Amino acid sequence: MQLTRSGPIKIAVIHGPNLNMLGIRDPDIYGKDNFDSVNQKIEAHAKSLGLEITIQQSNSEGAIIDFVQEAMSWADAIVINPGAYTHYSYAIRDAIGDSRLPTIEVHLTNVHAREEFRRNSVISPVSTGQIVGFGTNSYLLALTAAKRLVEESHR
Amino acid sequence: MQLTRSGPIKIAVIHGPNLNMLGIRDPDIYGKDNFDSVNQKIEAHAKSLGLEITIQQSNSEGAIIDFVQEAMSWADAIVINPGAYTHYSYAIRDAIGDSRLPTIEVHLTNVHAREEFRRNSVISPVSTGQIVGFGTNSYLLALTAAKRLVEESHR
Amino acid sequence: MQLTRSGPIKIAVIHGPNLNMLGIRDPDIYGKDNFDSVNQKIEAHAKSLGLEITIQQSNSEGAIIDFVQEAMSWADAIVINPGAYTHYSYAIRDAIGDSRLPTIEVHLTNVHAREEFRRNSVISPVSTGQIVGFGTNSYLLALTAAKRLVEESHR
Amino acid sequence: MQLTRSGPIKIAVIHGPNLNMLGIRDPDIYGKDNFDSVNQKIEAHAKSLGLEITIQQSNSEGAIIDFVQEAMSWADAIVINPGAYTHYSYAIRDAIGDSRLPTIEVHLTNVHAREEFRRNSVISPVSTGQIVGFGTNSYLLALTAAKRLVEESHR
Amino acid sequence: MQLTRSGPIKIAVIHGPNLNMLGIRDPDIYGKDNFDSVNQKIEAHAKSLGLEITIQQSNSEGAIIDFVQEAMSWADAIVINPGAYTHYSYAIRDAIGDSRLPTIEVHLTNVHAREEFRRNSVISPVSTGQIVGFGTNSYLLALTAAKRLVEESHR
Amino acid sequence: MQLTRSGPIKIAVIHGPNLNMLGIRDPDIYGKDNFDSVNQKIEAHAKSLGLEITIQQSNSEGAIIDFVQEAMSWADAIVINPGAYTHYSYAIRDAIGDSRLPTIEVHLTNVHAREEFRRNSVISPVSTGQIVGFGTNSYLLALTAAKRLVEESHR
Amino acid sequence: MQLTRSGPIKIAVIHGPNLNMLGIRDPDIYGKDNFDSVNQKIEAHAKSLGLEITIQQSNSEGAIIDFVQEAMSWADAIVINPGAYTHYSYAIRDAIGDSRLPTIEVHLTNVHAREEFRRNSVISPVSTGQIVGFGTNSYLLALTAAKRLVEESHR
Amino acid sequence: MQLTRSGPIKIAVIHGPNLNMLGIRDPDIYGKDNFDSVNQKIEAHAKSLGLEITIQQSNSEGAIIDFVQEAMSWADAIVINPGAYTHYSYAIRDAIGDSRLPTIEVHLTNVHAREEFRRNSVISPVSTGQIVGFGTNSYLLALTAAKRLVEESHR
Amino acid sequence: MQLTRSGPIKIAVIHGPNLNMLGIRDPDIYGKDNFDSVNQKIEAHAKSLGLEITIQQSNSEGAIIDFVQEAMSWADAIVINPGAYTHYSYAIRDAIGDSRLPTIEVHLTNVHAREEFRRNSVISPVSTGQIVGFGTNSYLLALTAAKRLVEESHR
Amino acid sequence: MQLTRSGPIKIAVIHGPNLNMLGIRDPDIYGKDNFDSVNQKIEAHAKSLGLEITIQQSNSEGAIIDFVQEAMSWADAIVINPGAYTHYSYAIRDAIGDSRLPTIEVHLTNVHAREEFRRNSVISPVSTGQIVGFGTNSYLLALTAAKRLVEESHR
Amino acid sequence: MQLTRSGPIKIAVIHGPNLNMLGIRDPDIYGKDNFDSVNQKIEAHAKSLGLEITIQQSNSEGAIIDFVQEAMSWADAIVINPGAYTHYSYAIRDAIGDSRLPTIEVHLTNVHAREEFRRNSVISPVSTGQIVGFGTNSYLLALTAAKRLVEESHR
Amino acid sequence: MQLTRSGPIKIAVIHGPNLNMLGIRDPDIYGKDNFDSVNQKIEAHAKSLGLEITIQQSNSEGAIIDFVQEAMSWADAIVINPGAYTHYSYAIRDAIGDSRLPTIEVHLTNVHAREEFRRNSVISPVSTGQIVGFGTNSYLLALTAAKRLVEESHR
Repeated sequence: MQLTRSGPIKIAVIHGPNLNMLGIRDPDIYGKDNFDSVNQKIEAHAKSLGLEITIQQSNSEGAIIDFVQEAMSWADAIVINPGAYTHYSYAIRDAIGDSRLPTIEVHLTNVHAREEFRRNSVISPVSTGQIVGFGTNSYLLALTAAKRLVEESHR
Repeated sequence: MQLTRSGPIKIAVIHGPNLNMLGIRDPDIYGKDNFDSVNQKIEAHAKSLGLEITIQQSNSEGAIIDFVQEAMSWADAIVINPGAYTHYSYAIRDAIGDSRLPTIEVHLTNVHAREEFRRNSVISPVSTGQIVGFGTNSYLLALTAAKRLVEESHR
Repeated sequence: MQLTRSGPIKIAVIHGPNLNMLGIRDPDIYGKDNFDSVNQKIEAHAKSLGLEITIQQSNSEGAIIDFVQEAMSWADAIVINPGAYTHYSYAIRDAIGDSRLPTIEVHLTNVHAREEFRRNSVISPVSTGQIVGFGTNSYLLALTAAKRLVEESHR
Repeated sequence: MQLTRSGPIKIAVIHGPNLNMLGIRDPDIYGKDNFDSVNQKIEAHAKSLGLEITIQQSNSEGAIIDFVQEAMSWADAIVINPGAYTHYSYAIRDAIGDSRLPTIEVHLTNVHAREEFRRNSVISPVSTGQIVGFGTNSYLLALTAAKRLVEESHR
Repeated sequence: MQLTRSGPIKIAVIHGPNLNMLGIRDPDIYGKDNFDSVNQKIEAHAKSLGLEITIQQSNSEGAIIDFVQEAMSWADAIVINPGAYTHYSYAIRDAIGDSRLPTIEVHLTNVHAREEFRRNSVISPVSTGQIVGFGTNSYLLALTAAKRLVEESHR
Repeated sequence: MQLTRSGPIKIAVIHGPNLNMLGIRDPDIYGKDNFDSVNQKIEAHAKSLGLEITIQQSNSEGAIIDFVQEAMSWADAIVINPGAYTHYSYAIRDAIGDSRLPTIEVHLTNVHAREEFRRNSVISPVSTGQIVGFGTNSYLLALTAAKRLVEESHR
Repeated sequence: MQLTRSGPIKIAVIHGPNLNMLGIRDPDIYGKDNFDSVNQKIEAHAKSLGLEITIQQSNSEGAIIDFVQEAMSWADAIVINPGAYTHYSYAIRDAIGDSRLPTIEVHLTNVHAREEFRRNSVISPVSTGQIVGFGTNSYLLALTAAKRLVEESHR
Repeated sequence: MQLTRSGPIKIAVIHGPNLNMLGIRDPDIYGKDNFDSVNQKIEAHAKSLGLEITIQQSNSEGAIIDFVQEAMSWADAIVINPGAYTHYSYAIRDAIGDSRLPTIEVHLTNVHAREEFRRNSVISPVSTGQIVGFGTNSYLLALTAAKRLVEESHR
Repeated sequence: MQLTRSGPIKIAVIHGPNLNMLGIRDPDIYGKDNFDSVNQKIEAHAKSLGLEITIQQSNSEGAIIDFVQEAMSWADAIVINPGAYTHYSYAIRDAIGDSRLPTIEVHLTNVHAREEFRRNSVISPVSTGQIVGFGTNSYLLALTAAKRLVEESHR
Repeated sequence: MQLTRSGPIKIAVIHGPNLNMLGIRDPDIYGKDNFDSVNQKIEAHAKSLGLEITIQQSNSEGAIIDFVQEAMSWADAIVINPGAYTHYSYAIRDAIGDSRLPTIEVHLTNVHAREEFRRNSVISPVSTGQIVGFGTNSYLLALTAAKRLVEESHR
Repeated sequence: MQLTRSGPIKIAVIHGPNLNMLGIRDPDIYGKDNFDSVNQKIEAHAKSLGLEITIQQSNSEGAIIDFVQEAMSWADAIVINPGAYTHYSYAIRDAIGDSRLPTIEVHLTNVHAREEFRRNSVISPVSTGQIVGFGTNSYLLALTAAKRLVEESHR
Repeated sequence: MQLTRSGPIKIAVIHGPNLNMLGIRDPDIYGKDNFDSVNQKIEAHAKSLGLEITIQQSNSEGAIIDFVQEAMSWADAIVINPGAYTHYSYAIRDAIGDSRLPTIEVHLTNVHAREEFRRNSVISPVSTGQIVGFGTNSYLLALTAAKRLVEESHR
C-alpha cells in the first residue's frame, strides 16, 4: 500500500497483564525501572523520533483486544508487550492479524532463558517482528523499528 | 426432561472475540458479510422459525461466561461462536457444561482447513453439536438445529 | 465458477461403514432411528427442498472412493458420513479433495464427546463444512446446507 | 522476612470463574453447598481462627489479576480457587508469582480424577501449596494452613 | 443375559489380510503350518469341543466388516485374527463393538516382540479378551475360551 | 455408606521411601524437622482431634502395599506420603484403589515447584484429596481432613 | 533345544501385587472368585493336565524377581500375572528374559478396556505369549498353553 | 539366490487409489498426463527395456493386497504407487513384505513438499527402494531400476 | 522458465560425509563398490547420456554448502547424497532451496529400513525428488532423471 | 562488571550460512538488498554510532565458532545472524555462552511466520536478546542495542 | 568439605536386580564372568588401590535404598549398578541424592546400544558420573574414579 | 578378531568444539584445568600406561570426521569428547561406526545434571562405552579403559 501520507506517524503502545507492577515485580528479573519511568522513557523517545503515541495497559485480555481494534481507526503501527497472554491468547493474535497494522512484539526479558512455556509465542506468527530481552530499551528500539516500517511502506 | 412448555422457544446467540470486526476482517477468509448484516440475517431467520433470540458479542472471556450464566435463567438453548476462545477457554467450557442447556457451537470458516491450532476445540466435548464452515449460514443452520433440539426434548 | 444451471440440484448421499446397522447399533449412542427410517427422512427432506439425491452405503473403503469418483460426473454436491473411516482414510480424503465438489461431512453423534480417536477427522480439511451431533437431523441440515452452497456458487 | 507484626492476619479469598454457580453446577460433582453457604462457612471458620478476610469472585481473568495485585497492599496471604483458569492462565500465575504473598491453591473436587486437562495446573509452581478434593473443607483447611504460614514467617 | 439355550454353540472364525498366505509367509516368524492345515486343526478342535464353526478369510476390510455383521444373526461368539487391520481399522472395531458378541482377538505371533506399530491394537478395547503368541494354538485356545464365555453367559 | 459407628476414628499414617531420613535429607528442601519430631507432632495432633493412629514407614514398595491392605481391616482412613513412589507405583495405586478407604495424599514440599517428574502423581486419581507443600503441617491438615471425611460419611 | 525329558511338566504360577485381595477387590471388575478359589481352580486344572505346579504371590517386586530366578532351577515354564508391575517393572522383565523359560503373561481383566496406562506391558516383549481378559479362565488357558509349549519344544 | 533364469523379466505395475483419476485430479499437482497416457508411456518404456508387464489399478486396499499376492506366482518384481494407502496400510505392507519380491515404491509428486501426513510411508521399510517426485518419469525410472535389481540378483 | 539452451546439460554431483569411505564402510550395508568405482560408474553413465558432470565430496557441512552455491553459476541440476547431514542440516537445505536448481536427493541404502533417525530428511522438502535404496544405481537413475528434468524445463 | 573503559566500543558482526547469497536468495522472502549493500548499511550505521566493527561470514559451523572465540579477545559485544544453524547448532551456542559477551541474535525475516522448524532457536537461551523480522534494519537496531548494553554494563 | 581424614577410603559397592545371575544371564550380552568372579575382581582391584569395600546385592528396590541409607554412616563413596531400576526408580534416586555421597553409576553393557528404554537413567542426574559399557572393567574403573573423587574432595 | 600384535597400543584422542577454551570456559562448570594442562595430564597418563597417542582438537564437524577416518589407518582405539556435536552430529556418529575401532566417549561434566538437550548423545549407540562426569579424570580413565579393550581383543 504505497500511499502518500502527512502528519506525524501514530503508534499505539499496549502493555499486557502485570506490566503495571513493574518496579514492584521482581527487580532481579525485570530491572529497576518502574511502570511510570518506563512510560516516561517511551514518551521521551517517541518525541525525539517525532512520533505521536498513546500508551495503554490492561490486565484484561478483552480490553487488550479492544485496544487493538480501536487502533485500526487511528494508528499506523502497534508496539505491544502482551505479557503472559503471549503464550496462549489466540484471541489477541486474531485481533492483531485482523488489524493488518504493522505490529512489533516486545518483551523486557529474554523469554528464551526462563521457563519453557515462555518460549512459545502465539503472537509472533502474526506480528511483523520481535524485539526481546533489552529491558526498557526493547520498547525504545521498537519505536524506532515501527517508525521505519511505516516510512518504508509509504515510500 | 419431558416437560410441557408454552410460548416461543428462546435462544441466546453469543459471538466471541473479534467477530464484531466481521466485514473488516479479511473478507477472503470470512466473506463479505459484515457484523450488522450477519445479525440481521440471524434475526430474520429466527423470526421465520418463530424463535425469540438475543444477540450478544464480547471480546472478553469473562463477559462471555456471564452471557452463558445469564442464559440459564431464560433461554432454551445457546448458539455460540466462541471465536479464538474455542481453542483454550476451559472457563467458557465449564460455563457451558454447567448450564446444561443444549448448545450449538458454530464457526464461520472451516477451521480444519486453516492453522493447526484451530483444529482443537475445548468447547466441542460439552456442546451438543457443531456446525462449521458455512459462513453466515452456519448460524442459520444452528438456529434450525437448536429449534429441533428443544422441540425434541419436550416431545 | 459462476455458471448458469438448470434442472434440480443433485446430491450424492454416502453412508460409510456400519451405518447400515443403525437401529441395531447401540441405541443409547445412535438413537432409535434405523437405517431405513433415516433414509426415508433424508429422502422426504430432499423432496421438500426440491433436490435429487442418491443414497449409497458401503462397509468398503474402496467402494466409498468409487461412489465419490462417480459423483463427479453427475452430482452438484456430496453429503457424506464416513463412519470410522473419518479417522484414517486418507484415500477417501484424496477422492473428496480431487472431486472438487462441495462436500459436507456429517456425523450422527458428537464425536468430540466420545473416545479420543474420534476427535480427529482426516476428512475435515478437504470437506467444505461439518455438521456434527444432531442425529438424523445432521443429514437433513446438511441437505439444506448443500443446497445453499450450490445455489450460492451459481449465483 | 522475620518481621514483628500486630493486628489480625488478613487473607484474600478469591473464587475464579463459574464458582458463583455453586449449588447450580452439577451437585454430583461439586456437592450440595451453594455459593452463599460456602462463603458463610468460610467466614465462620475465619472468625474462629481470628482471621480478617475478604471474599471476591469473578468470571474475568483480568479481574482476578486485579484482585491479586490489590491484595499485595493489604493481605498477608491469598487463598485462591482459580477454577478453569488453573489450567492455562499464565497471566494469573505471573500475578501470584509477582505478589510474593504466600498463596494456597484450592480445588473443591479431586481434579486428578476427572478429565485429563484438569490434571495440569499452571498455578501450582508459584503457589505455596495446594489443598485439593475436600469440597468446602478445602477452603477451611486452606485458611488454617494460611494462618500457620503467616505465623511461621513472622516467628 | 441369562438365557436358556439349546443346540451347539456357534462360533465365527475370521482371518484377516495375508493370513491366506500362511506357510508361504515367512516360516521363521509364522511357523510351518499352512493356511489349510491351520484350518483343519481349528475344525478338529472345534469338533472335539462340540462347537459349530464357520471359517472365513478376506484381504478386504469391508468384507471383514460384512463377516462380523452377518455373524450377529447366527453366531454366539467371534474368534478373529484381524491381521494388520488390528493396528488401524476403527471400522472393524466399530463392527465388533456394535455386534455385542463375545469376541476373542487372536494373534499367531507375539506382536509385542516385533515392530513397534504392532504393539497397538485398536481392536483390543472392544474385544472380550486376547490370546497372543502361541501360533496355531492361539486359535485353539480361543475356541476353548469362547466356549466357556458363551456357557458362562447362559448359566 | 451411612453407618452408625462408635469408638474413636482410626487412621493409618504411612510414610514412603526416604522419609525416615527427614532431618538428614536436605533441610533447605525438607525443613529442619526430623523424622521423630514429625511423628511426635502427628501424634500430638491426632490426640487433640481424638483420633487413634498408627504410623508406619518403609522404603519397600511391597511393604507399603502390605500396610494399605492391612489398614482395610481396622482403619477408617489413610494418610499417606508415598515419597518417590508417588510418581510410578501403580501397584500402590491399585492397593489404595482396592481398599476403598478415604485416602489423603500428602507431600511435605510443593512438588510442582521442583523437577518435572515430581509433578505427576499416579496416586492422585485414586486418592480422595491431596495436601501439598506445607511441611509437617501437611500431615496435620490431613488428619483434620481425614476426620471430617469419616465423620461426613457416617452422618 | 530338542531334549528328551521324563517326569511331569513343572510350572511356576506367580501372582503379582494385590492379587491376594481377589474377592475383596472390586468384584464388578475382577469377578466373584476370591484368591483361594482361583488357586483351587488352577490346581484342579493343573492336575487334570498332569502338571506339577507351585503357586506364589507377593506384593514385592524383589520377591517376584526371586520367584522367577528360583524357577530357573526346577520349572519348565512360568505362568505369571504381574499385576500393576506389568506396566513399569523392567526388573521383572529382565528376570523373565534372563530365565529363558517359556513364560505366559496372564491378566484377569481386559486391560485394554480400562485406564490408558494399563495398555502398556513392559513384560510382553519378553514373554512368549499373553492371555488376557478371561477372568480365572485366563490362568487355566495359560496352563494348557504352557503344557503345549513345553511339549512342542521337546518333540 | 543366484539362479539362472530365462525368458523376459516380468514386472507387476500396481496403481493405488485415485490414480485412475489422473488428468482429472488437480493438474497443478499431478501434471497434465492422464491415466491412459501414463500407462501408455509405462508400456512403451517396458517394451524398450524388454520387460513383460501387467498394469492394475484399484481403489480397494483388499484388491491391491490380492494383486501383490498374485504377483508372487508370476512376477520378478513389483512397481507400486500405493497412493494414499502409503500412509497407513500396514496390510499392504505385510503383503509386500511377505511376497519377498523386489518392490519399488513410486510417487508422482514430491510427497515431502506437501501435507505433513504424506511424509510418512509405512510401505518404505519393506520396499527395496523409492523413486519420488518425477511425475510419470517416476514409473519409468522404476522399471529401469526393477530390471537392474532382477538382473543383479540372478548374476 | 521455458528457455532455449545449447551445449551439453551440466550436473553437479555432490557426495556428503563418509561417502569417501565407501568400500571401507560396512559392505553388508553399502555394497562392495568403493568410492572410486562408484565415481567411475557415475562418469561412464553421464558420458552415455551426454552429460557434463563434476563430482565433489566433503565431510564438511560448510564445504557442501559452498559446492551448492558454486553450482548456481554453472550447473543445470544437482545430484546430491547428503549422507548423515540429510537428517539435520537445515543449512544445506537452505543452500539447495536458495539455489532454485532442480536437485535430486540420492541414497545408496533404503534409509527407511534402518535406524529411525534415518527416516527423516530435512532436505526432501526442497529437493525435486528422491531416489533411494538402489546402491550405485541410485546415482545412475538420478542422472537420467536430472537430464529429463532439465530437458522438460527447456522444452 | 562495572569497569571504566576508553576507546570506541567494538562489535563483532557475524553472518551465518547462505547469508552471502543475499540478493540472490529469494527476494520475496529476504528483500532486495544484496550482501554488499547490507554490509555497507551496517558499516554506515556503526560509524554513525561511533562503533568499531568487523563483519565476517561463513557457511561453516566451525568457522563461526572460531569467529566467536576470537571475538573474546577484542570485542565488547557480538551481533550474530546464525542462519539455519540457529535451529540446531549447540556448538555455536556453547561458543556464545562460553564467551560471556553480550550477544544479540538477529534474523532478517520473521522466522515465526515461516516453516515450523524455524521457530526454535537453540541460540536464544544464551543470547542476551533477539531482534527478528525487520530485514536489514534488524542489524541496525542490533548495533544500537549492543551499544546500549555495553554502555550500561560500564556505567 | 575440605576435611583431613585418616584410615583407608571406604566404598559401598551395590549391585541391583538380576546381577546375581551374571554368568547365567545371556553371556552374549553380559560376558562370561559370573557374579562370584566379578566380585573377586572387584575385591582384588580394591585391595590394590588400598580401598575398603563392602559388596551388596538385592533384587528389592527397598533393600537397595536401605543399602544407600546405611552407607551414609560409614562410606566415603558409592559405586552402584542399579540394574533395571536405573530406568524408573525415583526412590533410589532420592536415596542417592539425599546421601550426598559421591556416587558412581556403573553399567556392564553399553545401554545406549540396546532397547530404547535402557537409554534413560533417572539415576544419572544425581550421580557424580557414569562408567558404561566396559563389562567387569566398568566396576574397576569406577573404584579408581571413586578413589580420586574422595581424595580430591579432601585435598 | 584375535590377532597377535606387537609395538605399543596407539590411541587417537579427539577433542570437539570449544574444548580448546578450557580454563577460559566457566570454571564453575568445567574446572580449573586449562586445555594445555589437560593435555599434559593425558600425555603423562598415556606414557605411564605405555600408550602412543595423538591429541587433536577442532571446532569443525568435518575436521573431526577427518580425524576419525584417518585414525582407521593407524590407531587401535579412539578416545573422543565430541563436545556439543554429541547431541546432533549423525555424521560423526557414522564416521565412528564405520571406523569399527573401539571408541570411548568422554565428557568432562555430568551431562545428565545440566540442560535437557545434553542428555541425548547420538554418539553413544556406536561408541563402545562412555565415561562421564569426572573432569580431566574422564580422559585418564578412558585411556585405561581403551588399553584394556585393545588388550582383551588381542588376547
